[in-house]
Amino acid sequence: MSEGFAVTPWNVKGKVDYDKLIEQFGTKKIDEQLLIKMRNSAGELHVLLRRGIFFSHRDLDLVLQDFEQGKGFFLYTGRGPSRDMHVGHIIPFIFTKWLQEKFNANVYIEVTDDEKYLAKQDLELEEVKQAAKENILDIIAVGFDKDKTFIFQDTQYIKQMYPLALKIAKKLNFSEVKATFGFENSTNIGMLFYPALQIAPTFFEKKRCLIPAGIDQDPYWRLQRDLAPSLGYLKAAAIHSKFFPPLTGIEGKMSSSQPETAIYLTDDEKTVRNKIMKYAFSGGQPTIELQRKLGGNPDIDISFIWLYYYFEDNDKRIEEIREEYTSGKMLTGELKEILIEKLNTFLEVHRQEREKRKDMIKEFMYEGKLASQMWENNIF
Amino acid sequence: MSEGFAVTPWNVKGKVDYDKLIEQFGTKKIDEQLLIKMRNSAGELHVLLRRGIFFSHRDLDLVLQDFEQGKGFFLYTGRGPSRDMHVGHIIPFIFTKWLQEKFNANVYIEVTDDEKYLAKQDLELEEVKQAAKENILDIIAVGFDKDKTFIFQDTQYIKQMYPLALKIAKKLNFSEVKATFGFENSTNIGMLFYPALQIAPTFFEKKRCLIPAGIDQDPYWRLQRDLAPSLGYLKAAAIHSKFFPPLTGIEGKMSSSQPETAIYLTDDEKTVRNKIMKYAFSGGQPTIELQRKLGGNPDIDISFIWLYYYFEDNDKRIEEIREEYTSGKMLTGELKEILIEKLNTFLEVHRQEREKRKDMIKEFMYEGKLASQMWENNIF
Repeated sequence: MSEGFAVTPWNVKGKVDYDKLIEQFGTKKIDEQLLIKMRNSAGELHVLLRRGIFFSHRDLDLVLQDFEQGKGFFLYTGRGPSRDMHVGHIIPFIFTKWLQEKFNANVYIEVTDDEKYLAKQDLELEEVKQAAKENILDIIAVGFDKDKTFIFQDTQYIKQMYPLALKIAKKLNFSEVKATFGFENSTNIGMLFYPALQIAPTFFEKKRCLIPAGIDQDPYWRLQRDLAPSLGYLKAAAIHSKFFPPLTGIEGKMSSSQPETAIYLTDDEKTVRNKIMKYAFSGGQPTIELQRKLGGNPDIDISFIWLYYYFEDNDKRIEEIREEYTSGKMLTGELKEILIEKLNTFLEVHRQEREKRKDMIKEFMYEGKLASQMWENNIF
Repeated sequence: MSEGFAVTPWNVKGKVDYDKLIEQFGTKKIDEQLLIKMRNSAGELHVLLRRGIFFSHRDLDLVLQDFEQGKGFFLYTGRGPSRDMHVGHIIPFIFTKWLQEKFNANVYIEVTDDEKYLAKQDLELEEVKQAAKENILDIIAVGFDKDKTFIFQDTQYIKQMYPLALKIAKKLNFSEVKATFGFENSTNIGMLFYPALQIAPTFFEKKRCLIPAGIDQDPYWRLQRDLAPSLGYLKAAAIHSKFFPPLTGIEGKMSSSQPETAIYLTDDEKTVRNKIMKYAFSGGQPTIELQRKLGGNPDIDISFIWLYYYFEDNDKRIEEIREEYTSGKMLTGELKEILIEKLNTFLEVHRQEREKRKDMIKEFMYEGKLASQMWENNIF
């Protein structure tokens, strides 16, 4: 907090200085050279890489090396289920799906109903399970390969994971999880044990595991990398994203419990319009005249930032928008209209895909090729 | 330790003062009046009650009241699997089986392979699972009712127990388990979570749970009783046993890792004879002449104590033995012969029953009436 911001798996406060975070966490910046390697291996660069929302990594170079050498790797990410998933929640899955496609990799998605229940004092387990069901439908909508993707919910898959979790738990003590996550003597014993369950899927294959996730999850991977070799596994690799900033300004992250900060996947066209018009923090001038004269500041303008990070993936077009907005040719209202249209198209497609794939839960969780393998007894 | 002894679920040191332990733990002595009630309800008193090896309780009076009122109760006990089970390990199961018979109660037996693995630094999970299999055969040999008994192993039954365990874990924090079990900052996070799994079976039925177990397990029930009401369950009742003293003297308890302290269920007749003759601590005099003149001290004589606690269940006969030994009429060697014969008969019967029932694992763990109910989905 001395740095004016704080990032943990449960909280993001203040305006995050991502360069400082890289230093704090001991990760590496994704630099030009690594992006070139990535483009060479994948054939193209995803917009989230080009625009730097995935900005930091651990061992991504080794992952690409494994790929080039034909060893392959597997992907692992997760979701702490909550009632309303917002666009910031779904974007890492879109990126993960892209990685699956480009690298022909298995994807494991852990739905951590246990952790969510343990972390939120007033949540009932049944509510979390209900949210999980809805969230899984949203994740499936992204378009993962049903035979190379396994979505599992901790309370359902615990028996299979438990032996791995025990092996991990035996190597972690209170001091370590306290130092890593800021746990206290008043932290419940479920939370104290949970890191073992978030680490377990990194051992689902003997190949290297690549984890696309928010940088706030990195403390888990740090622990994993300390203990993996002693259990005969590879250290997990990670590719870290920045937080999609809340509508209300660039500090913190979108929150499911503050509707004004986020666009939910369930928001209809009118709600999207209202929220963007009303809440999207503007870098523009207070009057049209001043905007024409002085121009807007895209660096603090949430509509621009959202377009830049993901929703306008045409590189030429986004630079035109930046130029027009900065010069004063484009007004805040016009910029907002662009985002509204992009968002509504995105959400419309999402709704259609969700509807189309709504009967595929069984395949992703139980019956697809990878899923059915993962339910066999004694796989670990 | 200021009292010269210490009792935790993982260790017993020194000569235990059981009256002081009752005070320390806040339990109640099983007094004459309660024994009369017990005899009235059960129709007889088990030797382990008559001779006071089950000596302390929590709410046993309420259990008997529930029984008399037709509400019934259920029994729960457990076993941390280790390679060699000794007679001290099997005796609580014999008592539990007696309670099942007399009170027509369901019995749940938790085989805590997870805890054993987590607690012993150099144990592998596979070794513990192998030991569990052997121990379960010994437990089955005791003669439990196959349709009213469910034996479950944590790593197998974790999925069914996990929702209950999460609810319990959410109510316990590090300070509490530290204060209760003497955990430290260096305790692994598996051990920190485990109390939730030992408490979970006390919620397997809405009836009152009666736990026959060593007094060293009481700290778990103390925690259970603190949190049960807030989860809508009854506080568990317990009936506590003293430790069957090691052959080598009345301090501590028998240890699986010190062969000279214990008679294992696998010891053959010759081994039993050798161990008793060589190691059973004697309260007799150094010479026959002195023994004839001064007599032996049964209070510190392990052969006598073993006969008294369990192996000579005839009340008249045990008092004859005491009298003859104290008066000097009986020599140490003669006393030992009595115990050797009793032990070998006991072990022979056990071996026969184990062999007879060796194909019943399936029924007790999966297919018996109670077991199959317990494997149905979403029972908790």
